Amino acid sequence: MRETYVHGYDSRENERLRDQAGILVELLHADTHYPAGSKVLEVGCGIGAQTVTLGRRSPEARFTSVDVSADSLAEAKRRVDLAGLTNVEFRQADIFALPFDPASFDHVFVCFVLEHLARPVAALTILAELLEPRGTITVVEGDHGSAYFHPDSAEARAAIECLVTLQRAAGGNGLIGREVYPLLVEAGFDAVRVSPRMVYVDSSRPDLVDGFTRKTFTAMIEGVREPAIAAGLIEAERFDAGIRDLRRTTEAGGTFCYTFFKGVGERR
Amino acid sequence: MRETYVHGYDSRENERLRDQAGILVELLHADTHYPAGSKVLEVGCGIGAQTVTLGRRSPEARFTSVDVSADSLAEAKRRVDLAGLTNVEFRQADIFALPFDPASFDHVFVCFVLEHLARPVAALTILAELLEPRGTITVVEGDHGSAYFHPDSAEARAAIECLVTLQRAAGGNGLIGREVYPLLVEAGFDAVRVSPRMVYVDSSRPDLVDGFTRKTFTAMIEGVREPAIAAGLIEAERFDAGIRDLRRTTEAGGTFCYTFFKGVGERR
Repeated sequence: MRETYVHGYDSRENERLRDQAGILVELLHADTHYPAGSKVLEVGCGIGAQTVTLGRRSPEARFTSVDVSADSLAEAKRRVDLAGLTNVEFRQADIFALPFDPASFDHVFVCFVLEHLARPVAALTILAELLEPRGTITVVEGDHGSAYFHPDSAEARAAIECLVTLQRAAGGNGLIGREVYPLLVEAGFDAVRVSPRMVYVDSSRPDLVDGFTRKTFTAMIEGVREPAIAAGLIEAERFDAGIRDLRRTTEAGGTFCYTFFKGVGERR
Repeated sequence: MRETYVHGYDSRENERLRDQAGILVELLHADTHYPAGSKVLEVGCGIGAQTVTLGRRSPEARFTSVDVSADSLAEAKRRVDLAGLTNVEFRQADIFALPFDPASFDHVFVCFVLEHLARPVAALTILAELLEPRGTITVVEGDHGSAYFHPDSAEARAAIECLVTLQRAAGGNGLIGREVYPLLVEAGFDAVRVSPRMVYVDSSRPDLVDGFTRKTFTAMIEGVREPAIAAGLIEAERFDAGIRDLRRTTEAGGTFCYTFFKGVGERR
């Protein structure tokens, strides 16, 4: 089941992730800068949605971007090359078997990855060991339970709940945003600070209506239609009504809210 | 039923509202300033939780603060006098029968009021008529459906839902925050801009753990225990478990989120 719904591994998903990256770059990453000469590990870079932003914002830092999927890495490399960046190298590896020596990096960056892991604290602990003392980790995650909207709709909430349930069944956690703080603390990081990044959408912000509510969030929920119905989590009719109601929030008078959480901690 | 649960009309509630005002002043009101000489109407001032802040931040504006309750007004006056403010006068009146001529004010300010009204658009339309052309209205409302937390708890969510249900039964709307934009538009205001003000609480912010999660939000939910049980909305045991779980979010590793919405519009 995992491969049928986890984000990032087919081309429609790639399209979605590209839209999402464009519209959310400022909100999520405007305050992430790495000093000249610093070595930064990006774990789970996927198709490079964040990699291009990271590389551009810190042109004199050196990035090592890792993903488990060779196909995703190929796309990420293509996009980094297209952007003319020369400060990123790619490595194929699993987060639980990273080919690096302890204390190899000054900073680690992990975005939209922990939500897919059954053992996020174990992963964070591994990443801590790759950091120099006082090196930082930056974690960005969404939280699907942070979604609410007008007009409200029980069907739309039920459709969203399908994604949360499927993600949980696959060992992940779609509500992880609210847990970024305790996870970083439990993994032993110091000076942990978490800030929410809320996306609020109403008719006065047509770029967000289209780029976020429609093409990012609603598209993500639509992506679990088949597995949710196949798993008996919901009737097709109810799911489709939920999607219609999510689309209704993009019409005049509708509003939509979603929150990402960004946490930064230091290695002891 | 209304009088048994609606905020602001007994002394424990007053205590809660005072805590809330202290901790939230910056978040909600830091960007509200009125020019020297401008006439500002504050509707539903209650015990003056916002009045003192408004009067202090715009010392050369002249405020007229209105509430339907003589007891609340007496307390508001006491607090304004205690703060040494001389730019506020008080009037007792109902929002649907305000004793002012059309176009009497340059600005209107309404905070935590619309959530209690069955006809918020009608109220906003009345307020629009009291404004000079291009005068502004500022609306601040919470949204109880914006509350989520770690550890998550079905019982805590059920207890919160009791407040929403009771408020709806009394003609109000505890989920009004997400509707501030469409309400202002429907009432005919121009140039409407809404911004969310999210309160995010984790163990690194003990002032918010105590001042917001415990003494503001959880205290507000506790306040509906008797009417919720009497109305048959929930079993006492389940409600109490919900309160325990809300308190659990104030312990180590817990997190809590809530969002207020602030909207500003102009009279056409």
